[in-house]
Amino acid sequence: MTVRDKDRSTPSDRAAWTGRSDAACDKGDPRVRRTRPVVLLTDFGPQSAYVGQLKLVLHRLAPQAPVLDLAHDLPPQNRAAAALTLEGARRFLPRNAVVVVVVDPGVGSSRRIVAARYADDVAVLAPDNGILRAACGFEEPAELRAVANAALFLKPVSTVFHGRDILAPVAAKLARGMAWAELGPALSWRHLVPAPWSDAAFYGDSADAEVILADRFGNLLTNLRAEWLRGHRVLQVRCRRRRFPFVTHYEAVAPGDPLALIGSHGRLELAVRDGSAAERFAISAGHPVRVDFGIR
Amino acid sequence: MTVRDKDRSTPSDRAAWTGRSDAACDKGDPRVRRTRPVVLLTDFGPQSAYVGQLKLVLHRLAPQAPVLDLAHDLPPQNRAAAALTLEGARRFLPRNAVVVVVVDPGVGSSRRIVAARYADDVAVLAPDNGILRAACGFEEPAELRAVANAALFLKPVSTVFHGRDILAPVAAKLARGMAWAELGPALSWRHLVPAPWSDAAFYGDSADAEVILADRFGNLLTNLRAEWLRGHRVLQVRCRRRRFPFVTHYEAVAPGDPLALIGSHGRLELAVRDGSAAERFAISAGHPVRVDFGIR
Amino acid sequence: MTVRDKDRSTPSDRAAWTGRSDAACDKGDPRVRRTRPVVLLTDFGPQSAYVGQLKLVLHRLAPQAPVLDLAHDLPPQNRAAAALTLEGARRFLPRNAVVVVVVDPGVGSSRRIVAARYADDVAVLAPDNGILRAACGFEEPAELRAVANAALFLKPVSTVFHGRDILAPVAAKLARGMAWAELGPALSWRHLVPAPWSDAAFYGDSADAEVILADRFGNLLTNLRAEWLRGHRVLQVRCRRRRFPFVTHYEAVAPGDPLALIGSHGRLELAVRDGSAAERFAISAGHPVRVDFGIR
Repeated sequence: MTVRDKDRSTPSDRAAWTGRSDAACDKGDPRVRRTRPVVLLTDFGPQSAYVGQLKLVLHRLAPQAPVLDLAHDLPPQNRAAAALTLEGARRFLPRNAVVVVVVDPGVGSSRRIVAARYADDVAVLAPDNGILRAACGFEEPAELRAVANAALFLKPVSTVFHGRDILAPVAAKLARGMAWAELGPALSWRHLVPAPWSDAAFYGDSADAEVILADRFGNLLTNLRAEWLRGHRVLQVRCRRRRFPFVTHYEAVAPGDPLALIGSHGRLELAVRDGSAAERFAISAGHPVRVDFGIR
Repeated sequence: MTVRDKDRSTPSDRAAWTGRSDAACDKGDPRVRRTRPVVLLTDFGPQSAYVGQLKLVLHRLAPQAPVLDLAHDLPPQNRAAAALTLEGARRFLPRNAVVVVVVDPGVGSSRRIVAARYADDVAVLAPDNGILRAACGFEEPAELRAVANAALFLKPVSTVFHGRDILAPVAAKLARGMAWAELGPALSWRHLVPAPWSDAAFYGDSADAEVILADRFGNLLTNLRAEWLRGHRVLQVRCRRRRFPFVTHYEAVAPGDPLALIGSHGRLELAVRDGSAAERFAISAGHPVRVDFGIR
Repeated sequence: MTVRDKDRSTPSDRAAWTGRSDAACDKGDPRVRRTRPVVLLTDFGPQSAYVGQLKLVLHRLAPQAPVLDLAHDLPPQNRAAAALTLEGARRFLPRNAVVVVVVDPGVGSSRRIVAARYADDVAVLAPDNGILRAACGFEEPAELRAVANAALFLKPVSTVFHGRDILAPVAAKLARGMAWAELGPALSWRHLVPAPWSDAAFYGDSADAEVILADRFGNLLTNLRAEWLRGHRVLQVRCRRRRFPFVTHYEAVAPGDPLALIGSHGRLELAVRDGSAAERFAISAGHPVRVDFGIR
């Protein structure tokens, strides 16, 4: 029997994820902002002027909107990296943020651009390429629309940079209060392109997981979230015939030795202390990971 | 017979370039901003604190001015890279932007610093080293002045960082509404240092062009702008005895094969599909490019 | 006899350092800002979302506060690099800036976080790891406190990212005018962790200095500040049995030759013209440098 994320998530999971139970994070400045903040997440490098052009367009159309760089220079066209970055930042997003994701391997093809609005009024604009489902899998949006109203776009629309010509002007207009219905037709969450990975499948005494990203230090992130291990006792973790002792911190093994632990992303990770697990064991995204449980 | 840019440009060229015919790009927030935005373009890397120091000075002198990063970490002291980045962003600049260019191989010498004001009230501050003429060759400024009034500068003026001590304080003061005449004496556009390249020369059945920049992917940008090819049918493109078939997109040739096309900069480019034309053929800035035309 | 920094600094030293005698740097916009600017200095790379998460938290808690990036991507956990960057920027800081330093090799241990307020109302928040004493050695703060009031922090406080969970929310609250006494108990400046280096020791005819940082070009910065050489005539500079002629600019020696000079940090530096002194002579932080003086 496998258990899927939607079934497994509880209200307290979701509260932890969005951080809305966070007493120390107060409601912010009581004065009403005139425009919403725009948060950028892209795979453009610092030398390119692509991020700069996004900002010029945003400023021209919404000069009062604060623009926040969540991250740039992500591994090119890597949807898992973008999704995990957004997932990790979700609970810190300002309540009325308009998030723009420009990691877009399908630009120029007929892939859709979609806009999701969540219960806390956070909006996410992204190509429909699985990032949204992967990053926000827990959280069904209050409203979901295709970004299809060409009157909102910058003309001429380039075939290679929809970030500047579609996503930025639409984000600017949302930041200034444009009605959500202007975007285009409503969509069903279940019709979006699925995440680039399935979640780990749990059986009675084991779980089948998978590597979803090798980070730049060679640590291997998996599709198994920490909270799903509650009530389980991990006996061992295996990948490519190699055993990774499950520990709570790096220092529990000798330098150069392999280990498995819950990393800062809140996911099961395979690593090598002071080394690169990806290089050492030639493991990359897609390799299966087996987790065996003992009796609690 | 050669034809030079100024003669060749038409009002519609200029409209395309500045984007002022751009119906989708509306006039922005109607509320008057109290200070103008400052746009930064530099070759400083992210580790250096040079960009940070520019921003500290701007904030001290014009705390209300939005500061937008167009690009940093450009190839060091490469005037062509700076000019092409500014050219590509020109039509997205906010109408009252103050652009600061700090790509300054001549700092410490007696090179001038100049300020250009355009018809749409965009201002550009830059060392007089050819970048302005290269980036804005089409567009004669409404007003051009030497930045010579030392009372505006931060003292003591460093010999190695005029960006911080001259350009930033002057930009801050312009952003806050300082009269243009405070800058220094008026200059003639024709007396500026010319662009680091000549434009391509057109003959009846051919054009003599030149490589002006190898980008970081090894694509070779030339001094031949796309709009100058209107009415011509390109038969072949040659550089260093090598033929580059002229195509409309990369996929028209096999992986590893050379090609010529109109790239995202709106210029003739030489490239290798999935490879580096610069490395493969040992071509760099300055190499001549010959374009042959057929009968239309 | 050695002379220590505190004894050696004069009021005019301090004025030069904080730039408060700077006539060209006017008082800025007369309109009162509603929140103070926050200035960030970290060793996080551009791909990481760590800087982005800092900015999200700052925006959530102080949406009106301008956020200025002084520098990021500093050499990881290198306290000298952080201190020298802060020292070099000190005189450009806005008068009411809240500076946040996240270079934190001791995160997770019991090291303190401290907050210093200076006479010009600049505040610096940093781990108590020597950076503050190194960067601001001249300038005793008007007030110094431990950041210990857990009610100000973001919960749960991560064990690996106090920048986001402690420094950012505290900075946001200071930016919005929180009383200084809310932070925690007062501390004595002399009880902070000392700088990662001692200042150069001066004797009658020589000084014992030390390399404190190899920058990314291989130039070697020392713990000997330029102003301490007033009244001395440098005869020679030696390190690892190698002589470095003391000159005023790089061009005074042939390409590839070693030299010593006062660099842009206002410190004695060892360098190789058009080369890396660190690589060429295998010199790194900690190596002693001997400076011999002649009769003036």
